[in-house]
Amino acid sequence: MTARKDMNEPALPAGEGGLVRLRVDLSYDGTDFSGWARQPGRRTVQETVEAALATVLRLGSAPSLTVAGRTDAGVHAIGQVAHVDLPPAVDAERLQLRLSRLLPADVTVRAVSVAPDGFDARFAATGRHYRYRVTDRTPAPLRRYDTVAWKRPLDEAAMRGAAQGLVGEHDFAAYCRRREGASTVRTLRALDVSRDGDGVVVVTAHADAFCHNQVRSMVGALLAVGDGRRRAEWPRAVLVARLRDSAVTVAPPHGLTLVSVDYPPDEQLAVQARRARARRI
Amino acid sequence: MTARKDMNEPALPAGEGGLVRLRVDLSYDGTDFSGWARQPGRRTVQETVEAALATVLRLGSAPSLTVAGRTDAGVHAIGQVAHVDLPPAVDAERLQLRLSRLLPADVTVRAVSVAPDGFDARFAATGRHYRYRVTDRTPAPLRRYDTVAWKRPLDEAAMRGAAQGLVGEHDFAAYCRRREGASTVRTLRALDVSRDGDGVVVVTAHADAFCHNQVRSMVGALLAVGDGRRRAEWPRAVLVARLRDSAVTVAPPHGLTLVSVDYPPDEQLAVQARRARARRI
Repeated sequence: MTARKDMNEPALPAGEGGLVRLRVDLSYDGTDFSGWARQPGRRTVQETVEAALATVLRLGSAPSLTVAGRTDAGVHAIGQVAHVDLPPAVDAERLQLRLSRLLPADVTVRAVSVAPDGFDARFAATGRHYRYRVTDRTPAPLRRYDTVAWKRPLDEAAMRGAAQGLVGEHDFAAYCRRREGASTVRTLRALDVSRDGDGVVVVTAHADAFCHNQVRSMVGALLAVGDGRRRAEWPRAVLVARLRDSAVTVAPPHGLTLVSVDYPPDEQLAVQARRARARRI
Repeated sequence: MTARKDMNEPALPAGEGGLVRLRVDLSYDGTDFSGWARQPGRRTVQETVEAALATVLRLGSAPSLTVAGRTDAGVHAIGQVAHVDLPPAVDAERLQLRLSRLLPADVTVRAVSVAPDGFDARFAATGRHYRYRVTDRTPAPLRRYDTVAWKRPLDEAAMRGAAQGLVGEHDFAAYCRRREGASTVRTLRALDVSRDGDGVVVVTAHADAFCHNQVRSMVGALLAVGDGRRRAEWPRAVLVARLRDSAVTVAPPHGLTLVSVDYPPDEQLAVQARRARARRI
């Protein structure tokens, strides 16, 4: 637990103000959501879960959820993680059951637990894992919600080679939507491309954090290599130029799923949160 | 190719009447279909694909499809196989592309090919493979269309043991909806139960053929064992009694998917079709 006050802290730190911080593990089908973040007049995951919390706990106003990966409209999550600060009387296990009964079928709360000291779903996270599914064959109807159909044949070996040129610590400005005052330096730990047993090309991406649109922009560049429009060296050349290239298209959202989020051991949570908050990543 | 005339033959055999038999490989998400078979006023897979064939080929009346596994309302298919007899001018590859453009997103034609002599999607099939997905954990939102949520914990080892008691050649009358004059003797080659990496209990069933409701009835009996309502010996005792037991409930349709269909080598197709047609399985 940290005593440091920070303007970016959306709620009281655990323990302060008599509140207890809960970790909430979520999955959702992003198809019918306008993404994670609350937006007036839109159906979002954040608003849906916050409203369910308010109903279950009979709170006058909805509590605020902070999330590890703010997914865009149409993007899915298997292992999304959020936190929320609630009065200490709340029973975490009972809360999970009651939320499960109330929430619609496209969002589920997999677990609710009392967060360890210093836990912050966003700033204490040390890694995010995403998956992108795209197929150049006839898409399986049951997987059409999380698999993009690509009209041209894809060379997954060429994509795999190109992906290696992006791995490492780099300024990903060329693949990010700019946000004032925030760093675009990220450590891309892995970017792998394979074709699964059903012929679906699966891109997996692992980094400390991703900036806005980064995974979908990188996949867009890899798809240009995969279908032969660009050479395998091109995604790396775009990276090095550090400028958005209009030839990089952002791949469609519904192929993307946030798979899981990494956190450090409990005793390192506060240090990690302080470090990430300072860089606003 | 067989020259034998048979009342159960729904269309002219390949080559007769100047028609050519095409094999059609299909996948569908059964969620919004009232099953495979044509029914007045209902949206069915058969009617949807037959109507698309009529449109693409500018036929005055829709051609008739014969299918390997007539799935019920809500049941899905990955590797469904059908045949249709069409005028010889039809180009199989082009037909697949044109059907793909016309069909809705919940049914896809994976391949169209000229069928070998003696091929009959239903009667020449030597094996059908089904999969049933059920979870006693929080269901993954993206897989809610093909995974049943079970409210009580499931003991998959007990289910696995019980399943073994059903394997073999038996009269499955206790697990079948009766059809006048048709045999209920089937050879269940495998009935396996496992829990996958996401905690989903997956039942896979392989037989020469299944009678109506058989897979879902067997799964219903296994679920009664899995959640502790019945002992592991019970599904076999029901089988041996050869009478429908009202305690066997038919498991919900949306967990079930037809995965694939087996056919013998080309030179054995006609013999197999004659044999199966005689038994009407």
